[in-house]
Amino acid sequence: MPKIVDRTERRREIAGALLRIVAREGVEAVSVRSVAVEAGLSAGAVQKYFSTKEDLFRFALDLTSEFLEQRWETLDRSGDLLDLLLRLVTEAMPLDEQRRAEVIVINAFTARAAVRPSWAEFIRTGYDELAEITTQYISEAQSAGHVRDDLAASDLADAVLALSDGFANRMLTSATPAALLPALETAIRTLLIQR
Amino acid sequence: MPKIVDRTERRREIAGALLRIVAREGVEAVSVRSVAVEAGLSAGAVQKYFSTKEDLFRFALDLTSEFLEQRWETLDRSGDLLDLLLRLVTEAMPLDEQRRAEVIVINAFTARAAVRPSWAEFIRTGYDELAEITTQYISEAQSAGHVRDDLAASDLADAVLALSDGFANRMLTSATPAALLPALETAIRTLLIQR
Repeated sequence: MPKIVDRTERRREIAGALLRIVAREGVEAVSVRSVAVEAGLSAGAVQKYFSTKEDLFRFALDLTSEFLEQRWETLDRSGDLLDLLLRLVTEAMPLDEQRRAEVIVINAFTARAAVRPSWAEFIRTGYDELAEITTQYISEAQSAGHVRDDLAASDLADAVLALSDGFANRMLTSATPAALLPALETAIRTLLIQR
Repeated sequence: MPKIVDRTERRREIAGALLRIVAREGVEAVSVRSVAVEAGLSAGAVQKYFSTKEDLFRFALDLTSEFLEQRWETLDRSGDLLDLLLRLVTEAMPLDEQRRAEVIVINAFTARAAVRPSWAEFIRTGYDELAEITTQYISEAQSAGHVRDDLAASDLADAVLALSDGFANRMLTSATPAALLPALETAIRTLLIQR
């Protein structure tokens, strides 16, 4: 009788192998063969789950959002909505191996999306979703009186996402990434607090 | 008598060819051979000017800073130091083919630097220099009373650079990049103006 394999779990293992390769060697080191070796499978087995390399990349990128959502679920919920937003942004910074790998992957995807229209499409969709969620969150924080309401929630959301991306990018090659945290916190607080 | 070639000019032509390849096909399409073809030279001629691919990349990256400096030189100087800073940041956004190519190149370099320690070193040096120049500029703007002085110039500089990077990144895959400009301007003004 054949061994029953959970299809979803196997897909996650394969995408996880892809993420490790990108974080270690860059996006150009990814091939069906290298991913199969990293996952301990045959090339044929990988192709059974992902018919094209692009399917595989798309699934792996979705996985990075999932990791962030998982951390969001377990986050310390004390303080007001601005404190919580600051903790969430800090969670996305490349301050340990796992988060560093995620930022490298997102960065490499963006660089490649710029020269591959089909990739640009799914990077854009991801950004748009994130902007919508962040706008909604800031709007609630405004209603609760935790964030200034004299500026549009969508403008504030765009700024918070840009700060998050920009600081994450800079930390990636910084010798002392954590030293940039106070500047990130100052920027977000200054931007979001009504004086 | 051999034709006299301006060595500096030839090096710039070769690096320009590399930038065009990265902007069009991504960093992984770069080889001594592809750069030689793009520049209309032999592989041997390219190697006469750049002994390693890394030398070539480093020079090409320096060239992107030079382009930004050239635009800075010709910028409209009206208004106060904050207006000028806003124009400079806007100049760095990928809103036409040339600037789009520069942002793609810097982005691709950063993605690769994350998995190549020797590249991280020169990306870091570039960031550090930019942070120093920006801090100096904001400090002057503070003395002139054009920018708030209740926050450290270095923290404000880190935030402006992060906003610039983050918005440039997002515009790269946005269907309507210019639509993000008002949010960028709001963020920088809100951050830098004393109310």
